[in-house]
Amino acid sequence: MRFTSEQRLDDGVLERGFTLGEIPGILWTPGSASAPAPLILLGHPGGLHTMYPRLVARARHSAAEGFAAATIELPGSGDRPRSAAAEQARADLRRALEAGEPVDDEIVDRLVLPLVDKAVPEWRAALDALLSLPEIGGPVGYAGGVIAIGIRLAVVEPRICAAGLFAGSFVPRTMFEEARQVTIPLLVLLQWDDEGNDRQLALDLFDAFGSKEKTLHANMGGHTGVPQFEGDDGNRFFARHLK
Amino acid sequence: MRFTSEQRLDDGVLERGFTLGEIPGILWTPGSASAPAPLILLGHPGGLHTMYPRLVARARHSAAEGFAAATIELPGSGDRPRSAAAEQARADLRRALEAGEPVDDEIVDRLVLPLVDKAVPEWRAALDALLSLPEIGGPVGYAGGVIAIGIRLAVVEPRICAAGLFAGSFVPRTMFEEARQVTIPLLVLLQWDDEGNDRQLALDLFDAFGSKEKTLHANMGGHTGVPQFEGDDGNRFFARHLK
Repeated sequence: MRFTSEQRLDDGVLERGFTLGEIPGILWTPGSASAPAPLILLGHPGGLHTMYPRLVARARHSAAEGFAAATIELPGSGDRPRSAAAEQARADLRRALEAGEPVDDEIVDRLVLPLVDKAVPEWRAALDALLSLPEIGGPVGYAGGVIAIGIRLAVVEPRICAAGLFAGSFVPRTMFEEARQVTIPLLVLLQWDDEGNDRQLALDLFDAFGSKEKTLHANMGGHTGVPQFEGDDGNRFFARHLK
Repeated sequence: MRFTSEQRLDDGVLERGFTLGEIPGILWTPGSASAPAPLILLGHPGGLHTMYPRLVARARHSAAEGFAAATIELPGSGDRPRSAAAEQARADLRRALEAGEPVDDEIVDRLVLPLVDKAVPEWRAALDALLSLPEIGGPVGYAGGVIAIGIRLAVVEPRICAAGLFAGSFVPRTMFEEARQVTIPLLVLLQWDDEGNDRQLALDLFDAFGSKEKTLHANMGGHTGVPQFEGDDGNRFFARHLK
């Protein structure tokens, strides 16, 4: 991991850009941390530059509660090389959505499964690097989308102790079996009136999770309208499980 | 309203028993209130004596946030006179549940609709009396079950500004039309693995509510296993809307 930029935000949070091999990422650490801070990995749908305003808002909110936060670019997003197969799957998905057709499982599989297969080892490599920094301690949480990445990480990465998952994206049916293997505490966010999202699939997925402690928060406001108080709820969820 | 008992709990909360005509009730007020306290009506399934430990715990939790809390006995519960029709409906319900049969809509209607018709005017009369006390100010919230009572109150009682509803009891299908007329902010609690509860009906009901701000919290733990952190979430919900 190589730091490429550093700035102190007005609330004292230290924001550092980094690269991990070819993968760009951002790390935020609280201004006033005395002990190593627990870490929250911020999941997102790809495109660090576009997502930056929302990511930095989430990171500052987490930092106010004493958490460090970090994110990396997804494979095939932002400035990272595109994959022809992923671009084709994305185009097929867009076409189905624009035609108002139900999205074929096969398109979701082509789009999401390779993404999960590529992204999860990258997140784990980032975790290795981040946890080697003296200012970051365990335990670790994962927060946000892509929910399929969160599911796989929750199953394969024992350092992740709790996850706040945004149920706002497509999940291959084959991943329900993985969802059943998840045992860490979960807070699942669902935008009830998110028209582009399959609500029943999200509810089925919540049902499938094997975790004994799992909570679903459903709200109104559309895909991007998650109410502000959910940020506080997320902080309290992670405070219960990471502190 | 006539006060019948008074005791100071160890956290300073003042607990007063009262009667309103033939209806017994309990009022809890915060120990350290300087201004009139906003009021939360504590809904419950009936039987003040049996429910007391849970009700006093909820009231103390609310009082710690500066809320007064009050409850009254339901018609046909506790020491109040039984209705033959309600007892018959209750027996029919029990028989269906014990036989593992689906509960007929007609039984639910016979059990719940007369209860709502009788209980709601009583709650409103209690509200008149409670709001005439100098230590209690508006606005008012309703929290708990019976959810059908909460729905009717939310529609007909303009002094109720927010409701935290426990979706753990039977709701007559005809009340879905009333649910559509609810416009106040709602926090709906659902115990996901409550085997005696119709989960799909609870989700349909959440969908039906007309409120622009509505939040669903679903948890594990069975009918009586609502996690403790939901008490804090409820306090914050009411603090957002009643303060």
